[in-house]
Amino acid sequence: MHATNLFESIPTDIPEELVEVLAEGRGQIRIVRLVSQGHSSPDGFLYDQEETEWVVLLQGRAVMSFENPITGVINPVPLKPGDWIEIPAHARHRVESTSPDEPTVWLAVHWS
Amino acid sequence: MHATNLFESIPTDIPEELVEVLAEGRGQIRIVRLVSQGHSSPDGFLYDQEETEWVVLLQGRAVMSFENPITGVINPVPLKPGDWIEIPAHARHRVESTSPDEPTVWLAVHWS
Repeated sequence: MHATNLFESIPTDIPEELVEVLAEGRGQIRIVRLVSQGHSSPDGFLYDQEETEWVVLLQGRAVMSFENPITGVINPVPLKPGDWIEIPAHARHRVESTSPDEPTVWLAVHWS
Repeated sequence: MHATNLFESIPTDIPEELVEVLAEGRGQIRIVRLVSQGHSSPDGFLYDQEETEWVVLLQGRAVMSFENPITGVINPVPLKPGDWIEIPAHARHRVESTSPDEPTVWLAVHWS
């Protein structure tokens, strides 16, 4: 048994957001490492996912935003290391920005 | 929608290891924050769990150890921040030590 490190094996150049599945269980749960650097969701795009997503930012900085399901207003949530959010299925959201100067490392757990 | 921080709300005195369920899904998955400070498993004790556990150390230091299922030999694995291990169900293991000088923060995902 040996450990793997979440902050290692990050390429110096990250043209696209890096997505790596670290663990999977019975097709119903996935643990994923995401590495962003200056990435954001496309203009006007909102994720609307079938699965619940629990996500924590572990390194870097980001701003996510969430649509209020009643009013449609989109509220920004700035994130620093250690900040986590549980995103229910179909809670519409986007990544407004991630730090351009360093890799932003996220850990996400998806389940249905 | 707002964020909660994994490194905040840690009591100054931690007589027993702190265990908090952060999220649960359909009774089959649990995301848990653990905070240890100088804690270890009881002498000679080995966990033998029904569930898979994916665990990452996020702050502090620890040494876990794992029993080789063939030889019975117990091998130590030192852990630093970012180090993660997937522990299959029934893989016998223990926490040898955690840093006495600062809180050690772990995030664990359990599923069956």
